Amino acid sequence: MKRGSFAVLSNEDIAFFKKLLPGRVITDESELLPYNTDWLKTVRGASKVVLRPKTTQEVSDIVKYCYDHNLAVCPQGGNTGLVGGSVPVFDEVVITTQLMNQIISLDQVSGILVCQSGCILEALDHYLSNYELTMPLDLGAKGSCQIGGNVSTNAGGIRLLRYGSLHGNVLGLEVVLPNGEIVDCLTTLRKDNTGYDLKQLFIGAEGTLGIITAVSILCPPQPKSVSVALLGCETFDSILQVFKSSKLYLGEILSAFEFMDSQSMILVKENLKLNSPLVDYPFYALVECSGSNAHHDEEKLMSLLHAVLDKGEALDGCIVTDSAKIKNIWSLRERCAEALMYDGYCYKYDVSLPLSAFYQLVLDMRDRLGANATRVVAYGHVGDGNLHLNITSRQYSKTTFDLIEPFVFEWVAKYRGSISAEHGLGLKKREYIHHSKTPSAVALMAAVKKTIDPKGIMNPYKVLPESILR
Amino acid sequence: MKRGSFAVLSNEDIAFFKKLLPGRVITDESELLPYNTDWLKTVRGASKVVLRPKTTQEVSDIVKYCYDHNLAVCPQGGNTGLVGGSVPVFDEVVITTQLMNQIISLDQVSGILVCQSGCILEALDHYLSNYELTMPLDLGAKGSCQIGGNVSTNAGGIRLLRYGSLHGNVLGLEVVLPNGEIVDCLTTLRKDNTGYDLKQLFIGAEGTLGIITAVSILCPPQPKSVSVALLGCETFDSILQVFKSSKLYLGEILSAFEFMDSQSMILVKENLKLNSPLVDYPFYALVECSGSNAHHDEEKLMSLLHAVLDKGEALDGCIVTDSAKIKNIWSLRERCAEALMYDGYCYKYDVSLPLSAFYQLVLDMRDRLGANATRVVAYGHVGDGNLHLNITSRQYSKTTFDLIEPFVFEWVAKYRGSISAEHGLGLKKREYIHHSKTPSAVALMAAVKKTIDPKGIMNPYKVLPESILR
Repeated sequence: MKRGSFAVLSNEDIAFFKKLLPGRVITDESELLPYNTDWLKTVRGASKVVLRPKTTQEVSDIVKYCYDHNLAVCPQGGNTGLVGGSVPVFDEVVITTQLMNQIISLDQVSGILVCQSGCILEALDHYLSNYELTMPLDLGAKGSCQIGGNVSTNAGGIRLLRYGSLHGNVLGLEVVLPNGEIVDCLTTLRKDNTGYDLKQLFIGAEGTLGIITAVSILCPPQPKSVSVALLGCETFDSILQVFKSSKLYLGEILSAFEFMDSQSMILVKENLKLNSPLVDYPFYALVECSGSNAHHDEEKLMSLLHAVLDKGEALDGCIVTDSAKIKNIWSLRERCAEALMYDGYCYKYDVSLPLSAFYQLVLDMRDRLGANATRVVAYGHVGDGNLHLNITSRQYSKTTFDLIEPFVFEWVAKYRGSISAEHGLGLKKREYIHHSKTPSAVALMAAVKKTIDPKGIMNPYKVLPESILR
Repeated sequence: MKRGSFAVLSNEDIAFFKKLLPGRVITDESELLPYNTDWLKTVRGASKVVLRPKTTQEVSDIVKYCYDHNLAVCPQGGNTGLVGGSVPVFDEVVITTQLMNQIISLDQVSGILVCQSGCILEALDHYLSNYELTMPLDLGAKGSCQIGGNVSTNAGGIRLLRYGSLHGNVLGLEVVLPNGEIVDCLTTLRKDNTGYDLKQLFIGAEGTLGIITAVSILCPPQPKSVSVALLGCETFDSILQVFKSSKLYLGEILSAFEFMDSQSMILVKENLKLNSPLVDYPFYALVECSGSNAHHDEEKLMSLLHAVLDKGEALDGCIVTDSAKIKNIWSLRERCAEALMYDGYCYKYDVSLPLSAFYQLVLDMRDRLGANATRVVAYGHVGDGNLHLNITSRQYSKTTFDLIEPFVFEWVAKYRGSISAEHGLGLKKREYIHHSKTPSAVALMAAVKKTIDPKGIMNPYKVLPESILR
């Protein structure tokens, strides 16, 4: 990959930034390092300057300067992404939102929160809990990821089944465009049909169309009770039947529906010595419900358990309501990723598939790899059609890799799935976009990018393939 | 307003269309009339031809021809819009989706429905009820409005509080662009982070960026029980307290929260002779819950009633679970629009406001108009921040009108509300867009329009103000 024809940072540029942001310009090599390195430590950029604005006007002033001087920009939130979207590739100017962490307003009646984009997700959730409200999204990185980054990457996470996507929950955005212009679409309205819903363009654009500076988001009431069931099933088809039954019996309180295959369970038992409350089954469903009345919720979950056992959809099952026990059951599912690392090397894929094709990919992959893999394990969010496929071997093997790719992307494309369900494309996956999007869709994306960012300074080398932007 | 510099329909054009769509080209004056007239009969176009394609390819062929020959196009669904967005203004070629009414697929497990854009909303709901599913939206025009039009206008309706907006529920779209190109983003995935979420651009664009030909939409399970409470309150502030309590006590089963002021109740009693189960109060809240367990739902609604009476948030209230009685209570609220017509002339406004400013608009308007109005009444969707403000007089009066406009738009703009909560801008309201959107936002919309529709042939004279598109 070649560096774009952007200007090289000069001493005058640094002087301008230092005057604009006194004490908030980083140029020291060692201090720059964490901003140049991604969370997985697989991508490293060579930015010479990190800017830490506190206000939207400062972001606008910086970006306008960069636009006028043809300097490339890399917007950065919590830098917890997995596809290299949040770190510079060459020497882009890093603009971090870490000091933009003020809550602007909360309407306690409607649950509408307005805040700066650098607020940490977990901090927002803590703040909201004082008002019996909660954030409509939750994910592993909540302790360091920022709401602006969540919105820019259209983060999914474990509450999506219940509260829906950010495209529905984000009510307004304030964005600084690549030319420095501030677009204020920061409404706190649930309904507003006056023209195109521009904010949607920036949700999931991974910072390539502008920098999100503030977010207005609809926050649901905090659930008063949580219960979890773990069920053992004979086939993956039974898992789907249990999912359907869960929607019927739990209805509005169903908050998560996860699955693990037997290989995943063996993995966490072998590598992490975890205990399951059930004996061995080919498949497991983890069903969580959260509601406003513990007694009602338990009754519903109990009827579900009886129904799926009666109908033979599940072979065994247990219900837990105690928070420590709930945590233990969630560990079986959530610690799969950690357990995989004990095998040596792990090839990781995060795909969406229609439920009818969901598990066939795993079976086909297992057949294809045979002895070339230690394990082929699968777990994920059935409720969201999101499969985490993981293949381990003692060390990285080119033979194994070539058997997996591009086979896995072609397989997913054949079933009209998504090759990146929630992680985005960033730097790492942008060249695979055609497996999930048609040429006309990619061309339209490029047209939008060129319209909003004609100089291509905003988070270059990300999302769209190199060829299309030439 | 001036006709755009589009070509005039020729005999060769008609011949081309007749060859492409044998028996599905309307040119007869009287048959054209309903396609040239909007539902309110306040806007009338002069189109000379209506085309009735059955397939996406046919839509593409028509649009490509129009693009190449510089013919303007007006896409039309059920033609139930209230802002003149769905009828031609001059002699645009009308493309109706009425024959594109096929269901393509339903995944019974995930509840994901894929269908052509001309499917009638109510027909889809009937179809889904066979599978214990329901559409995530419902509105008065359901018997004739089409899902493609619903998506194009980002229809809100009475289920929005419960299931969220179409920006969250629509999973995929197939669209024919103004140059005839088909953009296939018709995925059935809940999670797909591979590039910009292009479909969002077309949701609420009122057909100005392309023609939606197929829709993929997430459908929730059909609720098994419905109950309704009607509560009388002393102040509008109490209404907001009751809304907050409803979210806490009903949580996940709250499905509608509507309000009426005393003048609205007097209106339906006087003009329609309807009966209310409550004596007179300054304000009324209509609270609906729908859930999966009738017994649980009634218990929750009963605790809400006790709580709001104990806390003095409501002065009186009743609960009904019988479907006939539920219908009677809903009539009080739903028939307000009809009742208004008996007063003579009605000035109608559909605005969104932050809840804190919600009712002040009504008080200010009542003060301002004094004896210039027969009534100033307000009702609407508190849960969505959507206020229906209606002013009646015996006949249309220029004096009254000038007292209302632009005052009402300026008032809404001052509180950062929306001058069109759910009806869109269409032809009638496009010049008022600046009351709800900043100049930079409107400029960005125009840039998007020009990128996607450089010739401006797609539903011209709609959504964006005339000046901005020059």
